[in-house]
Amino acid sequence: MMNKTIDELCVNTIRTLAMDAVQQANSGHPGTPMAMAPVVYCLWQHFLRFDPSHPIWPDRDRFVLSVGHASMLLYAMLHLTGAKTVNPKYETLGHLSVTLEDIKRFRQLDSKCPGHPEYRWTSGVETTTGPLGQGVATSVGMAIAERWLASYFNRPGFRLFDYDIYALCGDGCMMEGISGEAASLAGHLKLANLCWIYDNNHITIEGSTALAYSDDVATRFIGYGWNITRVGDANDLEMLDRAFTTFKNTTDRPTLIIVDSHIAYGSPNKQDTSTAHGEPLGKEEIKLAKRHYGWPEDADFLVPEGVREHFQAGIGARGQALRDDWWAMFEEYRRQFPELADHAYRMLRRELPEGWNKGLPVFPADSKGVATRDASGQALNVLARNLPWMLGGSADLGPSCKTRLTFEGAGDFSAENPAGRNLHFGIREHAMGAILNGLSLSKIRPYGSGFLIFSDYARPAIRLSALMELPVTHIFTHDSIGVGEDGPTHQPVEQLTSLRAIPGLVTLRPADANETVEAWHVIMQFRHKPVALILSRQALPDAGPREIRCRGGRAARCVCSRGCR
Amino acid sequence: MMNKTIDELCVNTIRTLAMDAVQQANSGHPGTPMAMAPVVYCLWQHFLRFDPSHPIWPDRDRFVLSVGHASMLLYAMLHLTGAKTVNPKYETLGHLSVTLEDIKRFRQLDSKCPGHPEYRWTSGVETTTGPLGQGVATSVGMAIAERWLASYFNRPGFRLFDYDIYALCGDGCMMEGISGEAASLAGHLKLANLCWIYDNNHITIEGSTALAYSDDVATRFIGYGWNITRVGDANDLEMLDRAFTTFKNTTDRPTLIIVDSHIAYGSPNKQDTSTAHGEPLGKEEIKLAKRHYGWPEDADFLVPEGVREHFQAGIGARGQALRDDWWAMFEEYRRQFPELADHAYRMLRRELPEGWNKGLPVFPADSKGVATRDASGQALNVLARNLPWMLGGSADLGPSCKTRLTFEGAGDFSAENPAGRNLHFGIREHAMGAILNGLSLSKIRPYGSGFLIFSDYARPAIRLSALMELPVTHIFTHDSIGVGEDGPTHQPVEQLTSLRAIPGLVTLRPADANETVEAWHVIMQFRHKPVALILSRQALPDAGPREIRCRGGRAARCVCSRGCR
Repeated sequence: MMNKTIDELCVNTIRTLAMDAVQQANSGHPGTPMAMAPVVYCLWQHFLRFDPSHPIWPDRDRFVLSVGHASMLLYAMLHLTGAKTVNPKYETLGHLSVTLEDIKRFRQLDSKCPGHPEYRWTSGVETTTGPLGQGVATSVGMAIAERWLASYFNRPGFRLFDYDIYALCGDGCMMEGISGEAASLAGHLKLANLCWIYDNNHITIEGSTALAYSDDVATRFIGYGWNITRVGDANDLEMLDRAFTTFKNTTDRPTLIIVDSHIAYGSPNKQDTSTAHGEPLGKEEIKLAKRHYGWPEDADFLVPEGVREHFQAGIGARGQALRDDWWAMFEEYRRQFPELADHAYRMLRRELPEGWNKGLPVFPADSKGVATRDASGQALNVLARNLPWMLGGSADLGPSCKTRLTFEGAGDFSAENPAGRNLHFGIREHAMGAILNGLSLSKIRPYGSGFLIFSDYARPAIRLSALMELPVTHIFTHDSIGVGEDGPTHQPVEQLTSLRAIPGLVTLRPADANETVEAWHVIMQFRHKPVALILSRQALPDAGPREIRCRGGRAARCVCSRGCR
Repeated sequence: MMNKTIDELCVNTIRTLAMDAVQQANSGHPGTPMAMAPVVYCLWQHFLRFDPSHPIWPDRDRFVLSVGHASMLLYAMLHLTGAKTVNPKYETLGHLSVTLEDIKRFRQLDSKCPGHPEYRWTSGVETTTGPLGQGVATSVGMAIAERWLASYFNRPGFRLFDYDIYALCGDGCMMEGISGEAASLAGHLKLANLCWIYDNNHITIEGSTALAYSDDVATRFIGYGWNITRVGDANDLEMLDRAFTTFKNTTDRPTLIIVDSHIAYGSPNKQDTSTAHGEPLGKEEIKLAKRHYGWPEDADFLVPEGVREHFQAGIGARGQALRDDWWAMFEEYRRQFPELADHAYRMLRRELPEGWNKGLPVFPADSKGVATRDASGQALNVLARNLPWMLGGSADLGPSCKTRLTFEGAGDFSAENPAGRNLHFGIREHAMGAILNGLSLSKIRPYGSGFLIFSDYARPAIRLSALMELPVTHIFTHDSIGVGEDGPTHQPVEQLTSLRAIPGLVTLRPADANETVEAWHVIMQFRHKPVALILSRQALPDAGPREIRCRGGRAARCVCSRGCR
């Protein structure tokens, strides 16, 4: 190994850790980590604003592994850079997020290295990925969030939020429709803080992409309004450097970097084949690949001397310096803008500001009543005025779902007005769901809306809200099989049952206006639970204001004997 | 009206019928029919191979209204061209599919003109639409079907199947991810028999598309490998004619026609506004629009003299002549190729050939057994060999789902080999679901496969299989929360419950290999029921062959007292 550069040494360490871990687990995906190791190495070591010793530093760049099956790539990076564990109270602990022992227990029960990266399980994982397309779509939510956070919190001389979002994706992500929805919206919003890296390796599970895929991806993304650049060889660190620099210098559009790669690079018999996608290489083939890398053939899970130190001197030192500077800036910011600093502090801990529930409407008893979508719209407008970092919108059904924020200054989020509170997702329910997840991962309090029947379109993203325990509110109106004259295509019959079947998703269906306000009161206090809030199109009789017994201060007008208010 | 050409008279009849019907229903979508009337008029009157007197003639062109909310456009065409009713036995009846009375009862209970077009309810409706993006994706299945049917049935001098598929779509269809998935596959398969017409009107429910959509659609579709042409004014019949001719002359790619239009064209106060999308224009505004068209302001539901006759002389006469020629050809075909003709006859009636269930496997009792995905793969290969018009594939999981047809001659469907039986859908579960619907609407017997967890991605299309009562088999394997080491993103917990909640979908989960064969035996005899077939990844103990009691000859080894076999 002596004649290798330190760059090659680091890249091959990532590769061999992935190969060895998959082999030991006897299942997993070695090919993509082997191919993409130099790309991730270049990005993390030379560009990423990330302090491994504090992986939830708010102004960090986000790295999303949309190819979640290539999880060993991420685990290897977290291990080698020495990323530290964060506990549920957002406190950094002294020990490693991913130890070498964890890597040796890849894909085993309770391992910090599960088959696909899991948010809230392994520190440094920015979002749960695996279902293809979800990661890239979530990254668009993260990019929207950064734009909004910067416009709300930054002040002259204080760039509190100024980070970029990178997502690594493959052919699967590109083929899934959700990536098209998300890319289209990202282009529309001119999210120049967003960079997708497309691993163009021509291989899927069934074989060559020639079986099913011949998009000219560059042209397609030009159609979405993106900036495109290309790296002809994933091993060319210089060209990768140039591509990331091109991204950094592009200020008016998101950037797609197309990287031509060889799946299972270095494996003499499996490179460029679909067998390298989702199976261990086999012990003999691993030896051959290691020989190709100039690696000791019999050394498993080897991290050569100098590798950890090199990462520490690169991303580690850079990240820590950036974070130190940021904290120094934040101390001064706190002095000059105490209220904003308090907002940032609460937001980052998913806490609510004082008076968050002031002014919620109370509806009189009424045999006619109002539609719960209307009551919800009123409650939402009160809450969003009280909670400045609450934002959301609709998949082109705002006027019907009554989710528009109408108070003065709410505004529309756009490329020109990133301070806007109303998002227009377009007719893209699936991307909306994932974008809400991305907003929530960025600690914004998001909601989205559509008709209940179209919850089906967003289901895989809603499921991820639940798996990640994100406080996202998915609002679905027009819950009635008599939804009007639109007919069976628009009548939600099975949707309520199927939403209630999702583990971890709280499905609330208030029966009148006051219950709707109460539902919002409960929802807002969730810090780690997503909600499907189901609302009516038509007026429902209202029982009037009433006292509600709760267990522990959750209700607005609680009269329970525990004296919890 | 006397100074108008007959073309204008026909176009304005379509427009005013739509306006009047929406006004009378006091709900609906007038804007798109008003804008697109000339496009649909030009297509139907000058190009469409369609005989209104026999709307299920097998060699007809298909017209898919992917903008299902613009249903009045289709109902007006069916009425004006005199389309006849077909009964469930596929017999043409003498009476109109859509009467003027039906149009007057638009969106009312039991009307033949429901809010969105419904297959099997209104003759002449090729597929149920309304949930956006479904129509265009289904049209890709229809185009694949035509290719396959032509390669199986056509013989020199006998072009039994030689038709085109047209789909009319709008911004909503374009924004939904499923359209991207479907367009990408259509481009890959070089489906030159497919034409999408994109109504580029810049308006959605929330307002201008500038709020959320700025794709360069032409460039995006060039990226998918499509041929693009553009019509700058929806009222320009000459340019429309040229565009459709361009499509007809393009033999190597699908075609997208981008038509710039004005929603609610002719309405002086509502044209180009979102209020014209989903609300009646109002009586006064209708009068003003009629004045603009040179129409009697107080005449409702007016079909001027000469209009029906003009359609009869155009599409009516052309369609009938084409069908007469086709039947003459078919008579000769039947003489020369009796077996193929018998296949066509059975296929078109969703009947099975003699011996369709010969050779199904029987598994011995076995404490270890086999995985039901393996048993299913064996049964499927027997059935598909016996049933030549059974085809299907997987969303890139064929090797895992065991759905590949491996017998000699099965082959892979591709642009170069349209006779192939194995489809490669790519990583596009949602489009796969819709494409299966399109295949089934074309009377092919289709199946698709994926992991159970990813059924969520395809749910809106599966729901349409059920609404349309199509005999599609959706195969989902890896049903186990212990699906291996892939973790929670891949563990199907709620999917079985949520599939079982879909009305009209038969969800079968056989418990061993013999039950799996029995499940297939039942499935194949369904003519109007979709199935979700849920299979295991791992071996399940097998109880061995057993006798099964059924009700009416449905089981392979029935011993019921009714002596049904």
